[in-house]
Amino acid sequence: MSFAFDLKARDGAARLGEIATPHGPVRTPAFMPLGTAGAVKAMLPETVRATGADIVLGNTYHLMLRPGAERVARLGGLQKLMNWHGPILTDSGGFQVMSLAKLRKITEQGVTFQSHIDGSTHELTPERAVEIQSLLGADIQMVLDECTPFPCEREAAATSMRLSLRWAERCKQAFATYGGEGQALFGIVQGSVYPELREESAAGLRDIGFDGYAVGGLAVGEGQALMLETLETTTPLLPEDRPRYLMGVGTPEDILEAVARGVDMFDCVIPTRSGRHGQAFTWAGKLNLRNAVHADDSRPLDPESVCPAARDYARAYLHHLVKADEYLAPMLLSWANVHFYQELMAGIRAAIGEGRFAAFASETRARLRGD
Amino acid sequence: MSFAFDLKARDGAARLGEIATPHGPVRTPAFMPLGTAGAVKAMLPETVRATGADIVLGNTYHLMLRPGAERVARLGGLQKLMNWHGPILTDSGGFQVMSLAKLRKITEQGVTFQSHIDGSTHELTPERAVEIQSLLGADIQMVLDECTPFPCEREAAATSMRLSLRWAERCKQAFATYGGEGQALFGIVQGSVYPELREESAAGLRDIGFDGYAVGGLAVGEGQALMLETLETTTPLLPEDRPRYLMGVGTPEDILEAVARGVDMFDCVIPTRSGRHGQAFTWAGKLNLRNAVHADDSRPLDPESVCPAARDYARAYLHHLVKADEYLAPMLLSWANVHFYQELMAGIRAAIGEGRFAAFASETRARLRGD
Repeated sequence: MSFAFDLKARDGAARLGEIATPHGPVRTPAFMPLGTAGAVKAMLPETVRATGADIVLGNTYHLMLRPGAERVARLGGLQKLMNWHGPILTDSGGFQVMSLAKLRKITEQGVTFQSHIDGSTHELTPERAVEIQSLLGADIQMVLDECTPFPCEREAAATSMRLSLRWAERCKQAFATYGGEGQALFGIVQGSVYPELREESAAGLRDIGFDGYAVGGLAVGEGQALMLETLETTTPLLPEDRPRYLMGVGTPEDILEAVARGVDMFDCVIPTRSGRHGQAFTWAGKLNLRNAVHADDSRPLDPESVCPAARDYARAYLHHLVKADEYLAPMLLSWANVHFYQELMAGIRAAIGEGRFAAFASETRARLRGD
Repeated sequence: MSFAFDLKARDGAARLGEIATPHGPVRTPAFMPLGTAGAVKAMLPETVRATGADIVLGNTYHLMLRPGAERVARLGGLQKLMNWHGPILTDSGGFQVMSLAKLRKITEQGVTFQSHIDGSTHELTPERAVEIQSLLGADIQMVLDECTPFPCEREAAATSMRLSLRWAERCKQAFATYGGEGQALFGIVQGSVYPELREESAAGLRDIGFDGYAVGGLAVGEGQALMLETLETTTPLLPEDRPRYLMGVGTPEDILEAVARGVDMFDCVIPTRSGRHGQAFTWAGKLNLRNAVHADDSRPLDPESVCPAARDYARAYLHHLVKADEYLAPMLLSWANVHFYQELMAGIRAAIGEGRFAAFASETRARLRGD
């Protein structure tokens, strides 16, 4: 199956769709759990699948350093290695180079940096980023971009965005060489919080032409209001017939707001990282299982859930596991949280399909606030 | 169902049997995975069950300190709390007090110690050990004993063993008060490596009368030869019609030898702890997945295994997960190792039933050596 996007329904700006990929379909709006270093942390791949996730994300930065892209290719690709039989999207490595690597140096050519693992020096160019993602066997690749921090001066944001545009063009060319059968390449709109820069970036990317368009450089500290404002001016600039991906976002509330502004795809560390930190998402709000208030609470996270992690274990037990630093704590809480996110996405998709997304979003916000 | 032991077949000194408990049957010889602090480390209870384990072990010492026996009872017992629907055996806490607690003081009355978690002072008497295990809801309880170190002078071993005998008598009396419907209490033979002390201990325990008999104080540094020698003089002293449990043992080779000497039950940290340290048991010997030799090895641990952890993931991937310190490494390796142990036990049981245990043991030893 080749990459394709089928836009099935609209409800205001919210969109219901389905992406076809070589490894199967992705129902949108979609939330992609993070398989950072080739594994969704503390979850078996079949458990990830059972939550309702269609696609997971792999990080080029982590995987190029360890186990290495050429090795992954020799071993049959990331899907086979992870024993994950669905689609995979890989980021381009740009964001992690900025946030994790040491001694990074950006030039027109690309970025050189030192590995945070062993200090070894690596280079990531637009061409190499695409080559790596092709070696990994990603169904959806992302262009190499420079992700500006927040706040960022207008001039710096403009310079950086234009570099990202030139890199995007080079990625597109490299993808013609390296990209595998049916795989897709997404562009990434940059421009910080400046509408005219976002416009210039989106126009440039549309001129090059991509299979999908991501909004990058958000959720980096600008706050929800500014993020949504920027999103609101950006999504209308993107082609209607291509999926839109808001990178690194977010909370359930963020996702509801972004879907309302026409976003189709999300990824975020929140459900798995929260799970590793003893936090659980429930339809009655977020719980910190480390809190002593749960020590004698025999209720499960959610007795109505179809997720065994949320249904079959007392909060008192989860509290105990967190306090005792048992592996089972992140295993159960990551599972429950990823399941919660997938339930949210399923609810969003059903609501859009039935033309009641605004009401669903408003009810869900109220539930999550504990109203 | 009340506790009972059905001895189904013998093959030399090796025995095939089945223990009935209030939470279901235990096929013997049995290996009990450790659910130390109320969880088999890095495994979901349904995964433990799927490996073929009939029963898990809980540690009184850990559970009395956290979450606390009274709390476990209020929450419906350990089975419910762990979401483990099978039988549970609890040790008495004696061994962990000796190995983990600080500032312990042993008197005729019992042992006082400081928690290794928060330094709080606790007392464990024979009566309290039984009360705690009853509160936890253990199907099989163990008497409180003093586990002598190795080496241990004859006089010290004798004094300690006689104290353990007096404690065993008090446990039996307390069990009449606290023990739940159908639950069982096992005695523990002590006496270090001195045959006449083991004899005195076994005779004393038989006089008191227990539902099963454990051999304690072994696998504490005496080496396999001395362990087996002691076992060989001890098991014939135990009633034929009661299960025999060799505590804290051991490697697959230890288990084969002990079964040949009439042991029915085992527990050991090895499969789960090895899994957390990147080691995998396979029928072609033990592998250290941290070793770079596995970095490009696309073979699974065992392509013939019915265990998904052993069958569906390349050694190269397991190596990567271990190196990257991913949660999935202990999750998969603990699973594969517990499955391996349960396969070993199933093989042992089948061989005894068919009167070919000696041949099975010899073939298995050769396989494990890589012959």
